[in-house]
Amino acid sequence: MHSHRQGTSLLHLDASASGRGDSVTRRLTARYADIWRGLHGPAGYRYRDLAAQPVPLVSPAFVSLGIRVERHGTVPLPKVAELAEGPAEEHEWALTLPLITELRAAGTVLMGVPMYNFSVPASLKAWIDRVTFPGAFLDDGTGDRLLRRTKVVVVTARGGCYAPGTPREDFDFQTPYLRAYFTDLGVAPGNLHFVHAEMTRAADVPALARFTPLAADSLAAARTAVSDLAGERAGRTPR
Amino acid sequence: MHSHRQGTSLLHLDASASGRGDSVTRRLTARYADIWRGLHGPAGYRYRDLAAQPVPLVSPAFVSLGIRVERHGTVPLPKVAELAEGPAEEHEWALTLPLITELRAAGTVLMGVPMYNFSVPASLKAWIDRVTFPGAFLDDGTGDRLLRRTKVVVVTARGGCYAPGTPREDFDFQTPYLRAYFTDLGVAPGNLHFVHAEMTRAADVPALARFTPLAADSLAAARTAVSDLAGERAGRTPR
Repeated sequence: MHSHRQGTSLLHLDASASGRGDSVTRRLTARYADIWRGLHGPAGYRYRDLAAQPVPLVSPAFVSLGIRVERHGTVPLPKVAELAEGPAEEHEWALTLPLITELRAAGTVLMGVPMYNFSVPASLKAWIDRVTFPGAFLDDGTGDRLLRRTKVVVVTARGGCYAPGTPREDFDFQTPYLRAYFTDLGVAPGNLHFVHAEMTRAADVPALARFTPLAADSLAAARTAVSDLAGERAGRTPR
Repeated sequence: MHSHRQGTSLLHLDASASGRGDSVTRRLTARYADIWRGLHGPAGYRYRDLAAQPVPLVSPAFVSLGIRVERHGTVPLPKVAELAEGPAEEHEWALTLPLITELRAAGTVLMGVPMYNFSVPASLKAWIDRVTFPGAFLDDGTGDRLLRRTKVVVVTARGGCYAPGTPREDFDFQTPYLRAYFTDLGVAPGNLHFVHAEMTRAADVPALARFTPLAADSLAAARTAVSDLAGERAGRTPR
C-alpha cells in the first residue's frame, strides 16, 4: 500500500513551452526519467505535459468550493465532493481531484521548469493554483503533512545567470519561490532538490555570447546532477 | 499623438478567479476605474479580464519567433511579422501584437492581482509571458524604454499578512516580483504603485478570525489609496 514511499513511483511534469528539441529542461528531465525507468521499471511512471495539455485556470466555482471546505476545517479528500454545490463546483472538483491524487501518490516529483520572465511559466502556475486545495496534503486524521517524505526534483533552465552572488540574484523568483511553495506544502527541505542549467540563451542573444563556455559547463554539471539524483533511492527520512 | 502620455488612457486588467461579488481586487480596481472615468471620460478606457478571457499560453512557435527576433537585435514592431515563419508563428504573433500595442498605448496600467499561492495568479502570468516579447518596449530608433513614463498601479489582495516585518514577509513572491518585472520592462520606480488589502481571508479561515479588524482597516486604507491614486494626474516625470 505504501509502495510509493519506497521511491517506486515518479510523477514527471514538464512546463517548457518549447518541444524537446529546443528545451533544455525537457532534455534533462527525460534523462532523469530514462535512468529512473531503467532502475525501477515503467509501472510507477506518470507523465504530464503542462504546456501541451494545459491545466485549466481555476474558476469562481473552484474558489467558492475551496472557501467552503476551509470553513469546515480539514475535510477528507473523498468527502470534498459532498460539499460541492451545483454542477460548476462539481466540474471544478472533477478537474482537480485527479491532480491532487497523482501528487499525493508520487514518491518522487520531477519538474522541468524554465525561467520565464524571472518566475515559473504560467503553465506550471496553473497546475500549482489548481492542485493547492485546502487540506489536500494533510492527513485528515492526524493533520500530518502527507508530502513530508516526497522527493521533489526541480530542473531549471535560466537564460542568464541568477546564482547567489551574481548581479541578477535578486531577479530570481523561480527557485526561492518553488522552495517556499513546496516547503509550505509540506515537503521536507532535505527532500527538495534543484538542478540549474544557466546561461542557456548565450547562443541566441548576442550580448551573452561571451558566456557560451559558462553555459556549456553549467549544462554538463546539470547532466551529472540529474544522473546522480535519478540513481538515488527516493523517500529518505526528512531532516 | 502622444495624448496617452498625458494620462488620458487607462488599461484596466483583472486577474482574480472570482467574480466581482467575491473579489476584493475587482471591487478596488472598479472603484479606481469609476473615479478615473469620472475625471477623464470613457474614451481612453480599456478593460481586459485575464481570468474570464484567458490569454493563451505561449507555444513553441512563440518561443521560436522570439529567438529569431532577438538574434536580429531590436526589430521595429511592424517588422516582426516579416520574420514570422509559417502559420504557427504568424498565429502566435497575431495573438501577441494587440496585447503589446495595448500596453504601449496605456498612460496608466491598473491591475487587480490577488495573491495565489504566494505569487501572482496563473492568469496574470499568462499575460506576462505573452506580452514580454524581445524589444517590444524599446524604441527601435533610440533604444529608449517606452514605458518609462507609464504609471502602473497594482492592487493586491492577500489572504494573510505579508508586510515587511511580519512572519510571512519571505513568502511574498507577488509584490517584489511585479516590482522587479515592471522595473526591468522599463517602468520608472517612481511610477510604480502598490495598494494592498491584507488578511482578506480572515472572515473565512477560522485560524485567522482574530485578524478580522485588521482586515477591515487594511481594506479601508486600500480604498483611500485607490481613490487618491485614481485622482492623480498620470504620466509624471520619472525619478
